[in-house]
Amino acid sequence: MHREGGPLVMPRRSISFHFPSPTLDPAAAEPLHRQLYDEVRRAILTGQMAAGSRLPASRKLATRTRLSRNTVLAAYDQLIAEGFIEGRSGSGTFVARAVPEALVPQVPGLPPRPPGDSAKRALSKSTQRFCESVSLRHMARVEGEAFNPGLPALDHFPMDIWRRLSDRRLRNASPRMLAYDDPQGHLPLREAIASHMVDTRGARCTAEQVIIVSGSQNAIDLAARVLLDPGDEVWIEEPGYFAARIAFEMAGARVVPVPVDDEGLIVGEGVSTAPDARMAYVTPSHHNPTCVTMSLPRRMALLQWAEQAGGWIIEDDNASEFHYDGHPHAVLQGIDKHERTLYVGSFSKVLFASLRLGFIVAPRDLVPALVRAREFIDRQSPGWQQAVVADFMHEGHYSRHLRRMRGLYATRLSHFRSIAARFASDLFELPQRHGGMSHVAYFLAPMDDCAAAEAAYKAGVCCTPLSHYHSRPQGRPGLVLGFTCADAERATLAMQKLVAAVRPLRPLPPLVPSPFDPVE
Amino acid sequence: MHREGGPLVMPRRSISFHFPSPTLDPAAAEPLHRQLYDEVRRAILTGQMAAGSRLPASRKLATRTRLSRNTVLAAYDQLIAEGFIEGRSGSGTFVARAVPEALVPQVPGLPPRPPGDSAKRALSKSTQRFCESVSLRHMARVEGEAFNPGLPALDHFPMDIWRRLSDRRLRNASPRMLAYDDPQGHLPLREAIASHMVDTRGARCTAEQVIIVSGSQNAIDLAARVLLDPGDEVWIEEPGYFAARIAFEMAGARVVPVPVDDEGLIVGEGVSTAPDARMAYVTPSHHNPTCVTMSLPRRMALLQWAEQAGGWIIEDDNASEFHYDGHPHAVLQGIDKHERTLYVGSFSKVLFASLRLGFIVAPRDLVPALVRAREFIDRQSPGWQQAVVADFMHEGHYSRHLRRMRGLYATRLSHFRSIAARFASDLFELPQRHGGMSHVAYFLAPMDDCAAAEAAYKAGVCCTPLSHYHSRPQGRPGLVLGFTCADAERATLAMQKLVAAVRPLRPLPPLVPSPFDPVE
Repeated sequence: MHREGGPLVMPRRSISFHFPSPTLDPAAAEPLHRQLYDEVRRAILTGQMAAGSRLPASRKLATRTRLSRNTVLAAYDQLIAEGFIEGRSGSGTFVARAVPEALVPQVPGLPPRPPGDSAKRALSKSTQRFCESVSLRHMARVEGEAFNPGLPALDHFPMDIWRRLSDRRLRNASPRMLAYDDPQGHLPLREAIASHMVDTRGARCTAEQVIIVSGSQNAIDLAARVLLDPGDEVWIEEPGYFAARIAFEMAGARVVPVPVDDEGLIVGEGVSTAPDARMAYVTPSHHNPTCVTMSLPRRMALLQWAEQAGGWIIEDDNASEFHYDGHPHAVLQGIDKHERTLYVGSFSKVLFASLRLGFIVAPRDLVPALVRAREFIDRQSPGWQQAVVADFMHEGHYSRHLRRMRGLYATRLSHFRSIAARFASDLFELPQRHGGMSHVAYFLAPMDDCAAAEAAYKAGVCCTPLSHYHSRPQGRPGLVLGFTCADAERATLAMQKLVAAVRPLRPLPPLVPSPFDPVE
Repeated sequence: MHREGGPLVMPRRSISFHFPSPTLDPAAAEPLHRQLYDEVRRAILTGQMAAGSRLPASRKLATRTRLSRNTVLAAYDQLIAEGFIEGRSGSGTFVARAVPEALVPQVPGLPPRPPGDSAKRALSKSTQRFCESVSLRHMARVEGEAFNPGLPALDHFPMDIWRRLSDRRLRNASPRMLAYDDPQGHLPLREAIASHMVDTRGARCTAEQVIIVSGSQNAIDLAARVLLDPGDEVWIEEPGYFAARIAFEMAGARVVPVPVDDEGLIVGEGVSTAPDARMAYVTPSHHNPTCVTMSLPRRMALLQWAEQAGGWIIEDDNASEFHYDGHPHAVLQGIDKHERTLYVGSFSKVLFASLRLGFIVAPRDLVPALVRAREFIDRQSPGWQQAVVADFMHEGHYSRHLRRMRGLYATRLSHFRSIAARFASDLFELPQRHGGMSHVAYFLAPMDDCAAAEAAYKAGVCCTPLSHYHSRPQGRPGLVLGFTCADAERATLAMQKLVAAVRPLRPLPPLVPSPFDPVE
């Protein structure tokens, strides 16, 4: 190798480098100039052709490869445009001098996977904490199988109607439906939701307070981001919905577990533990997971706290359309005179989860900030799907389907309780239950409920251990079992499998006080 | 009013309260017991019936209202279940004692809107800053009209194919497609994206590195949340895409504008200003908005910085499938040996924006954290839509549509340049342009480009002022005009309207140094 010129000029190698002998295929879908471009580019990036090395003249290469000269020139032009090669007037074409050889991969293919302990290289601190603290085992997915909590009876979904409405919307698709639209959501859908909430759930709102999001999890995350600063306290129900807790933790909030009794969240406990909390997360219609309904006195106390402390209430109404003993409960939002409540609803349970549509009914003065944040987080929800759901509601299919599913799920709940009594009365105790889509089954003996859920999962039965709903380990062990997705036959089979899987597990020894425990 | 019992017993009023005289309608859709429930509930909440007051006995009310006694009992049962009324054995039914009168709204209907200055009551600090700093004027929506930047030719979208594929997926809908699925995204879609990226864009990835999100904005937000801590520095292009800047600011990051020249981001400037930045946001294929392609030396320098500083690169490839002079540029991700690059792609430009699907090609060791965060932010993207796009890609419709649109947009770009030259050569200067979907038009004279965009908008022409892309006011004034959505006729008309709207605006006086400016 010899040098020409001063130190600023790159070494120009002799012509003896290995130019790739292109194996070009005129029959391939890729045009020939693109194939040639790919060959040369790969040769440069893998180090086969070094920086500063000279490429064959286009005419010469054309002859050698039996391509037209225009094909070669097209490939070279593209490589020049992207900076891989340079033409120097009068002296030919060269691999760009400024491709530092050290940075160019020396071997084709992917580099070896970085070692395991670098898996957290440079995550944000909140993500590091989050990755350390969360187990996703309870998110295990078993397709459509009993007893998947919260999974509706998808085989009873009126797919023919949905197909017809979907296709009608596509046939008449307006640019507005396909392009960006109002980030707050499709107005006819917001109107349908507001009517439904006022007419059937006792809400007090207009379409202007409805914000379309992609589900209740998304609603909780959005509210947390817009309303909480890192370190702010949030009351959560104990036991309570774990995914909400995680969303608050992701926002940097400090969650304060507040116990739940048979009237719902014990507001007084929250007030004495964290009176200045910025937010309270509650499931007043049907507590998740125990299905307790929050009493009116507790509701009033909660609203009074929110007003006095300047706190916000997230009312998560998950699965509360399904009530089997009289009508669904009226919502907290409807009696909140001071607009401290953000009501969170979802279409995942009445329609289907992968639709990814839900909504917030927000205090009027929070709407602009929530919508603005949503716009810069993910612009809006899908336009076509919003339009289809709006049609589905306006044409009465929504309430009809809801009514049918209420009847079906009441039957399935009653069947579930009878098979639990028949097959599992020595294992579980089932409290009374009048709504929702899943059932808590408390173990009669002390038990590692995570191990039980794991054993059930291996036997093909999906459920969630109750301990996931506890932020402290003291909770009563149990399983949360969805009773809505499977018909009687499948549910019976699943109950038998579940019992067979769980019964062999050894109960934990009863908790006896240790002599070393502090005396109270 | 007289008291019975001790101080713990609520005052029991005489029976002379105004019980609502229900105007019940047997022909209404709502069942009669529900109508009665609503009447009583409203009376309680509006204070018409006070706490502790006695309700008529069910039999008596049935007679008075000509309802069956079962109807009345159904309404009472529901009110008892919800805590609005209480039955005391032997002594009748009463409005619950614990409805504190002070909290019950005294008048029906919504309370008056809180005064204007409370609009920010208790937003988080980051949201307050964000609401103060952001103008959304540039987000103004004009449906499908020229010159909406980034809006594709929706009337050329192969809707017949899309309808057929959509309906086929619904006809054979599996529970898995309708229920929750992998939060990382539908595997066949991730495979199709990985193939497309490797085969046509020079990426180096597998489907395991592809994460489906709801668009490029969502991808940027997700990356910022997972990788940045508040106060971390992020290089952004100056000028550059404002919505990305806002997403970083929402994550609490400190954005560092780094100038762009005709080789793209001046990496050396970034290194000297903020060497320890945690992230760099770049648009290397076509800089947004100027369409400059980042040179290979700059790409190499950027990768070298990222590797040495432990920084991350967000490569936003917005609209870069559309290149009219040779093939689309190869992506930066493909030459990043050390996996510091998160490539961000979107279906908004090739398919349609309201679809809300996009993707990240992530370094392999970041995938678990990104997916986990996504799961707790909004679970997943819509299942059915993902399946349809996967089919659309696997069956070749995607690349066929892309090819057709490349041809169409090249024609529209050339038409756009010719009408700009014909009608607006005294107003604008247009730099060369070989790709993307929008065109920068620089004003020849100093001009308030926000006022110009506003005037255009009022005349029915949509565009974005260039100053929105600047974080500092010194930028050259201009307009960003989308040339892809309108056909020749509409584009010509819009250009004439635009010129007519903008020409009457007075140019700003040239910038002369003030005697009070500090001497440099």
